Amino acid sequence: MKLTKRFFLVALCIASFPLPAFAADPLPSWNDTASKKAIVAFVGKVTQSGAPDFVPPAERIATFDQDGTLWSEQPMYFQFFFALDRVKALAPQHPEWKEKEPFASLLKGDVKGALAGGERALLEIVMATHAGMTTEEFEKTVKEWIATARHPKTGRLYTEMVYQPTLELLAYLQANGFKTYIVSGGGIEFMRPWTEKVYGIPPEQVIGSSIKTKFELRDGKPVLVRLPEINFIDDKEGKPVAINQHIGRRPIAAFGNSDGDLQMLQWTTAGSGARFALLVHHTDAEREWGYDRASSIGRLDKALDEAQANGWTVVDMKNDWITIFPFEKR
Amino acid sequence: MKLTKRFFLVALCIASFPLPAFAADPLPSWNDTASKKAIVAFVGKVTQSGAPDFVPPAERIATFDQDGTLWSEQPMYFQFFFALDRVKALAPQHPEWKEKEPFASLLKGDVKGALAGGERALLEIVMATHAGMTTEEFEKTVKEWIATARHPKTGRLYTEMVYQPTLELLAYLQANGFKTYIVSGGGIEFMRPWTEKVYGIPPEQVIGSSIKTKFELRDGKPVLVRLPEINFIDDKEGKPVAINQHIGRRPIAAFGNSDGDLQMLQWTTAGSGARFALLVHHTDAEREWGYDRASSIGRLDKALDEAQANGWTVVDMKNDWITIFPFEKR
Repeated sequence: MKLTKRFFLVALCIASFPLPAFAADPLPSWNDTASKKAIVAFVGKVTQSGAPDFVPPAERIATFDQDGTLWSEQPMYFQFFFALDRVKALAPQHPEWKEKEPFASLLKGDVKGALAGGERALLEIVMATHAGMTTEEFEKTVKEWIATARHPKTGRLYTEMVYQPTLELLAYLQANGFKTYIVSGGGIEFMRPWTEKVYGIPPEQVIGSSIKTKFELRDGKPVLVRLPEINFIDDKEGKPVAINQHIGRRPIAAFGNSDGDLQMLQWTTAGSGARFALLVHHTDAEREWGYDRASSIGRLDKALDEAQANGWTVVDMKNDWITIFPFEKR
Repeated sequence: MKLTKRFFLVALCIASFPLPAFAADPLPSWNDTASKKAIVAFVGKVTQSGAPDFVPPAERIATFDQDGTLWSEQPMYFQFFFALDRVKALAPQHPEWKEKEPFASLLKGDVKGALAGGERALLEIVMATHAGMTTEEFEKTVKEWIATARHPKTGRLYTEMVYQPTLELLAYLQANGFKTYIVSGGGIEFMRPWTEKVYGIPPEQVIGSSIKTKFELRDGKPVLVRLPEINFIDDKEGKPVAINQHIGRRPIAAFGNSDGDLQMLQWTTAGSGARFALLVHHTDAEREWGYDRASSIGRLDKALDEAQANGWTVVDMKNDWITIFPFEKR
């Protein structure tokens, strides 16, 4: 009887210590193929105290592209749908847009015609819809849109079109002491209002393209006004530059899906010690979209060759992922 | 006997839980004056769960200026001494400097003459000493300098000339779940190599002025090259802009010492909920330096008026701080 009580109390003691759980599979939406094995092996070796590849938690930096890596990017980058909706919403205040390209075409629903003006047209659309307000006003607009706007093909909220396998991957890395960052060509202030809720990534770990802002006192109240001027394009060669600027440390793992991520993966893998690079290859035209070398959005060409040459992990979406979107789960 | 054993085990159980320690004074170098009381009261109310001013840990952002707030800034910003030492070290590779201002004056030891060229001269000195190498090479140079260079007046390493009271303040905030950032006019890559060791602030929480960098492959190896072009000046109106760009959240507490910090304090205190703003007033010509409204370095004029008008905390260095530098402690 004495022993029983004592054992009971000792057991309670032990149970109150944080012990590693008898781990359920942290990546249940991944088939047990080479990609998953490579991820688990990498995390294992950098987190095992005393092992030759051990990396202290402070240096466990992992960077993720967003469009095509954490959520879909077809038939257009989702932020472009936001811009289109803003053009429609703002049109009554801009009667001149009826006659002025690229807005005239957009308002007639002719996206292709609007974009015939190339980069300049795109820039005009972005500036007309992303600049001219305070950062607080813009944040409010983004929050409202992301909570209600729906994808033209699936009818889902855009935040439902995130990939279940990369959500699991983020959580797995976070549970293993990694600091996970988004490093996206998308707008930094377009992402920050909702990434914490959707990905568990707080605003200070979101890096993206940006326009300039200006500090002003309005009736004695300080505001930051968004200016119609590009500050930084966080794509291709820009990604390592932005990583250095924001983080000041080289990541040990990087995740992308297109040629826009190539330099981030090169920069990451060129560091010393264990490194990990992964590309998501969109091979599943049935459950998601199928595209690579010839796509104008999310082109994966040079980076695919480099992945093969360097032994980077390439996810074959069709064969590696059991589930694509969280809403598919039963 | 049964009871004793049981109590022993229960006691063990309790001891294994993380309990708040019977707190020793977390700010032992601060006299028990209004400044210290205001700090402790603020931290108390934002960390007390369920209280009206409670702030969740993720939102406990505190930003610190560096020069004059975390370490001294007289008789010149310490980074300028670094630049001077670099000019001397690089002079053999630049025979033309013997004839060319501002370098000619500098090499003769005539700093005042060199700076007669104003901002342009200063910029030339910074670019000649901070650009043209890779980020890794620059980091190495900074590490070597900071480990060996000594202050012209005290003969101390520059990292010894940090303020013991603000070191304690940083540790106190960190222990209370705050994420502490440096937001300095100094160079971001001049600070990052050593702030973690000196202040417990990791590179990703250091914000500063910067020059542009460029991604390049050199013999197949990716590098970031530092270009002789200003990217961002993190001073005055620039501080809220940089805080928004890097952190994406408004701080709830901000600490500075000069007019260069005014906008950061305005931006911080304009948010809703409990806010805290503090200025270090350099009133101790005997133990450190005495300067404020008339100083060309670290001028504290407008911000001092605003502090008085808004009820911000102003540290009177002479009367509020028991110890200034860690090396004074016995």
